[in-house]
Amino acid sequence: MTGRVYLDWNATAPLRPEARAAMAAAMDVVGNPSSVHAEGRAAKALVERARAQVATAFGASSADVVFVSGATEAAALAMARRTLATAPVEHEAVAAWGDGTLPVDERGGVTVIDPAATALQLANSETGILQDLPPGIAVSDMTQAFGKVPLAFDWTGADMALISAHKLGGPKGIGALVIRRGLDVAAQIRGGGQEMGRRSGTENITGIAGFGAAAEAAARDLERGEWDRVAELRTFLETRLEDSGNLTILVGKESKRLPNTTCIITPGWRGETQVMALDLAGFAISAGSACSSGKVRSSAVLGAMGYGPGEADCAIRVSLGPDVTQEQMARFVETFRRLQDRRRR
Amino acid sequence: MTGRVYLDWNATAPLRPEARAAMAAAMDVVGNPSSVHAEGRAAKALVERARAQVATAFGASSADVVFVSGATEAAALAMARRTLATAPVEHEAVAAWGDGTLPVDERGGVTVIDPAATALQLANSETGILQDLPPGIAVSDMTQAFGKVPLAFDWTGADMALISAHKLGGPKGIGALVIRRGLDVAAQIRGGGQEMGRRSGTENITGIAGFGAAAEAAARDLERGEWDRVAELRTFLETRLEDSGNLTILVGKESKRLPNTTCIITPGWRGETQVMALDLAGFAISAGSACSSGKVRSSAVLGAMGYGPGEADCAIRVSLGPDVTQEQMARFVETFRRLQDRRRR
Repeated sequence: MTGRVYLDWNATAPLRPEARAAMAAAMDVVGNPSSVHAEGRAAKALVERARAQVATAFGASSADVVFVSGATEAAALAMARRTLATAPVEHEAVAAWGDGTLPVDERGGVTVIDPAATALQLANSETGILQDLPPGIAVSDMTQAFGKVPLAFDWTGADMALISAHKLGGPKGIGALVIRRGLDVAAQIRGGGQEMGRRSGTENITGIAGFGAAAEAAARDLERGEWDRVAELRTFLETRLEDSGNLTILVGKESKRLPNTTCIITPGWRGETQVMALDLAGFAISAGSACSSGKVRSSAVLGAMGYGPGEADCAIRVSLGPDVTQEQMARFVETFRRLQDRRRR
Repeated sequence: MTGRVYLDWNATAPLRPEARAAMAAAMDVVGNPSSVHAEGRAAKALVERARAQVATAFGASSADVVFVSGATEAAALAMARRTLATAPVEHEAVAAWGDGTLPVDERGGVTVIDPAATALQLANSETGILQDLPPGIAVSDMTQAFGKVPLAFDWTGADMALISAHKLGGPKGIGALVIRRGLDVAAQIRGGGQEMGRRSGTENITGIAGFGAAAEAAARDLERGEWDRVAELRTFLETRLEDSGNLTILVGKESKRLPNTTCIITPGWRGETQVMALDLAGFAISAGSACSSGKVRSSAVLGAMGYGPGEADCAIRVSLGPDVTQEQMARFVETFRRLQDRRRR
């Protein structure tokens, strides 16, 4: 789509060239990783190489990484058989299994009472707000943080973490539940006993290969400071918006946030209307978290932070990535202001 | 792997060129199918196109097809919350949830007592033996049959069917639960509400695109008679084996079978030894069903048909596909006989 500007990296990131190359190579591998012949062993080796890549990038050990079809499956595997305390800022995949009772302050901070009985996200997908994880948290959704901020699972103190490939430039449909040594989960998808019995089914080797390559490339980008540049673009965006003199709220600006995410409230201008107007103008952004298409719903995240429906319904999320340029950002600000002004007149 | 002959198509089939092309094209689609902007709509359109391809190839409607990560997940989604009667010939992914009580005769036929409370496979992965599905069967594993024999879900009378892409030349890690109109399942993986609320999680669009293209190509091959040619190769193989004068049992030869599968018992010569010897000689075959690597176990399928461990442990499965040539088949027979003779001396 020529000329389009993609500013919805938290919904999904473009596929990294390294992931694409690894996936193309994996397509040539004929065998089933469970087969004992040479073709099977080659497929198995590919899976284990990718597992090591993901583990290294995430600061964990290979043995900790259970490949699943995405963070949503990881959440079900970690949480479906127990009741964990959660705050209303969690993604729907976690909220589906949590109690939603933990208090959230106006800056988006969650108060944890019993870490061992709590699931707490590391970064919020809508606002980018980061949580301070208390040691020993039972489950942490690290999907949005992995690849965007320096992070080592072994140092987070979490028992289990959910991660996903497509948020860091890998393919959609592959993720992992990462489990601290000594802990275990009961398999929900059973059969052949793959993934050390924790998750059966013939491995998605194309996806796994892409995940491994993307995680490695993401870790390299982070080390190179690519996300510092993204943070500068975000500052550029937010400063321009503040200077415009329009009544605009930048959610979580005073909190620790992901470097790439801005949640912008323009009271009186509905989020989905903004998304559609900006889409027509060539910009892909979102109103809240990507969920099954068509649904329009007030953001539970903003509600929990104390915003009323008149504000929560008027939020958009602009999420950047390393491919975004300053020129694109300037065009976005100019277009956003123009649409905002046109609306006010 | 130059010069190798791949005869393990029931474990996994080589990726079809049509699937590879569709996957490469899907990698260029940036959006999340749940996003409402142009990039998201393009991703959604790709998913729905593939859903129509799979539905058409499988003789179902698009609305019946729930994409999941493979037939193993489909089995859990269809079966985990109820107790269905099963026979010991089912794949482990189905056996994990069934009661394993239904009788199996010496030809591999299963006696069904109450179809509405039964899961019954259409084709066995180890022997290729086909079952006559009574109308109204609750769940049928059609993974091995789909793409190899003419089949239309709407005419099978089954309530639900499990299918997988990689058995018919699509990618590993994608499959579907197909559900007859009017029936439903409770989601096990919950969150964003994708797949009409039956299976949440960002869609594996690369895998889904590959599944769609592979299903379409598989249906075309079937119509062109490609599998009749495969059946002729299988007959060639079995006739040569019978003519060799060695004590060899061809399991299920008198039953209706898939056109591509031969289960060969050579009493006294362990299956895994045969697999290793043939692997060194350049042929990829299997001993029973592919399961998590390293496990060596007597075949429950052959046990249920009345074979003792002395026979069941000495079985190999040779499974062919449209890429296999008569020259390869002749080489296989020659090598198999030579190894068999060497062993007897």
